[in-house]
Amino acid sequence: MLKMTIAELEAFYDEHFPLRDSFRFRIETVGERAMRLRLFYSDLHLRPGGTISGPTLMTLADTAIYSLLLAHLGPVALAVTTNLNINFLRKPAPTDVIAQARLLKLGARLAVGDVTMFSEGDEEPVAHATVTYSIPPVKTA
Amino acid sequence: MLKMTIAELEAFYDEHFPLRDSFRFRIETVGERAMRLRLFYSDLHLRPGGTISGPTLMTLADTAIYSLLLAHLGPVALAVTTNLNINFLRKPAPTDVIAQARLLKLGARLAVGDVTMFSEGDEEPVAHATVTYSIPPVKTA
Amino acid sequence: MLKMTIAELEAFYDEHFPLRDSFRFRIETVGERAMRLRLFYSDLHLRPGGTISGPTLMTLADTAIYSLLLAHLGPVALAVTTNLNINFLRKPAPTDVIAQARLLKLGARLAVGDVTMFSEGDEEPVAHATVTYSIPPVKTA
Amino acid sequence: MLKMTIAELEAFYDEHFPLRDSFRFRIETVGERAMRLRLFYSDLHLRPGGTISGPTLMTLADTAIYSLLLAHLGPVALAVTTNLNINFLRKPAPTDVIAQARLLKLGARLAVGDVTMFSEGDEEPVAHATVTYSIPPVKTA
Repeated sequence: MLKMTIAELEAFYDEHFPLRDSFRFRIETVGERAMRLRLFYSDLHLRPGGTISGPTLMTLADTAIYSLLLAHLGPVALAVTTNLNINFLRKPAPTDVIAQARLLKLGARLAVGDVTMFSEGDEEPVAHATVTYSIPPVKTA
Repeated sequence: MLKMTIAELEAFYDEHFPLRDSFRFRIETVGERAMRLRLFYSDLHLRPGGTISGPTLMTLADTAIYSLLLAHLGPVALAVTTNLNINFLRKPAPTDVIAQARLLKLGARLAVGDVTMFSEGDEEPVAHATVTYSIPPVKTA
Repeated sequence: MLKMTIAELEAFYDEHFPLRDSFRFRIETVGERAMRLRLFYSDLHLRPGGTISGPTLMTLADTAIYSLLLAHLGPVALAVTTNLNINFLRKPAPTDVIAQARLLKLGARLAVGDVTMFSEGDEEPVAHATVTYSIPPVKTA
Repeated sequence: MLKMTIAELEAFYDEHFPLRDSFRFRIETVGERAMRLRLFYSDLHLRPGGTISGPTLMTLADTAIYSLLLAHLGPVALAVTTNLNINFLRKPAPTDVIAQARLLKLGARLAVGDVTMFSEGDEEPVAHATVTYSIPPVKTA
C-alpha cells in the first residue's frame, strides 16, 4: 500500500527542500500508517538554557506527518497543514530526537496524525503533537 | 502505584456526579498510565443524522483523562481541565464508544494525556483528543 | 451577505434540535463574520464546586460557530466539526455565559472561527475556543 | 503596568537570542495585554511554492506571546511554552507578516494568549494561534 520507499522520500526532500541543512533528519522506519524519524542534534536547534527549541519540535512533528502522507499518497500530492496542536511535556536533552508518527485518518479531503517525540534513549516523551493536512482534490484529465 | 481501584473510582463518581444518568460509562481496565472506558450508547447522545454528538465525545475524552488522574493521584486532588483539543475523524456508529486513554505526562503542576475513541467493534478511530489538567498545589499542614 | 436572520436560526434549531431544553441559548446579535450568543444559566450545567462544566462551554463554542456558519451558508449545508481546541481560563460564575464568535476563514472546504466566552457582567474571559468545520461539497444538479 | 519598553525588549532579544538573524522581527506596538509584531520577509522563510513556511508562522506566534509576557512580567521570568495550537487559514503572500497578539489570561501559574497573523496590507488573516505558557514559581529570599 505504500507508494514511496525511504530512499524515494529522501530523494524527494533533497530535491524540493535543498536548504534543509539546518534541519537534518533521517526516516528510520516506515510502515502501514506509522513512521519513525530521527532529528539529528545540532547547535542550531538550541534555545537559551541549552534545550531544543519549541519551533524545532513543531517542525519535526509537521515533517513527520508530511512524510507519512507522502509515503501513502506519493509525491504528486501537495498537501498543506491546516492545524497543528502541540503539547510540550519535558525539557528535551541535548541529543537526537526520535519522532514516532501515526496516521489516525487518511480521508479524501483531510488527513490527521499524531506524533510522540522522545529524546534518544529516554522513555518519557518530550512532546506530543496532532497535525491535520488538507489534501487537494485529485485532478482528472 | 495506582491509588484507586475501578470500584473506588465508580463509587467516587456515584457520590460526586449523581446526575450522570445522561452519561453512563464504565471503566473497563486501568493500569499504569493507561485506561479503557466504555460509554454506553443512549439516544441522548445523538445529533441530527443519527450520529453521536461532538459534545458527547468531548465529555468522554475529558472524563477518561480525569479518571486516569484520579487513579494516579487519589480522590483528594481537584484537578481542573485547562486545555482540550479534539479531532473528529469519522462519523461514529450508533453503538457504544470505547475510549483508550494514555497519560503522557504527570507533573507536579500539569498532567497531559491523550484519548483515542472507537465505535465498538471498529478498528478505525472516530476521534482523538489531547487533554491538559492543572494540578493544584499540595497543601502542607 | 447573511442568509438567515436570528428568527430563522431560532426556528431551525427548534425544528432540528428539539431536545435542547437542557441547553437553552439565545442568539443576541449576528453580523458579518461575527455573532453573540447567550447561554442561559441552568443547574444542569453545573459540576461539583458550583461552576459551569467544561462540556457545557465546549458545546457553547461549537454551537456558536455552527450558528455563524448557518447564518452565512444557509440551512442547507451540513457542516461537521473536524477540530475543536479550547482553553479554560477562569472558573465561570453561576450565571449566563456570553459567547462572542468570529469567523476567521470561510473557505470552500473548511471554515474556522474562534469564540471568546465571558460570565455575564465580567470583562475577563472564562474560556476561548477555536473550531474548524468541514463544509460538504455543493451538489450540482 | 508594563515592565519593559519596546527598546528593553529589543535589547533582551539581542542579548539572549543572538542567532536570530534568520528570524528578524520588530515589535511595533505594545500596550496593556496587546502587542503588534512585524516579521520581516526573508527568503529563508519560504517553502516550496513560494509561500512562508508553517514553522515560520508557529515561531512568530510563539515569539509574540513570549514578548507579551516579558512586557508584563519583566525579564526575570523564564516562562516555557506548554501548548501551541495553530490554524493555517490562507497562503501567505511573499511579504512581511503582521502578528496581533492578545493576552487572554495572566495567572500565577499559566498565561494564555492568541495571535492573529496577516500578510502586510491584507485584511484576511493567514493564521491564528493560541499559546499557553507555564510561569515558574516566584522564588522568595
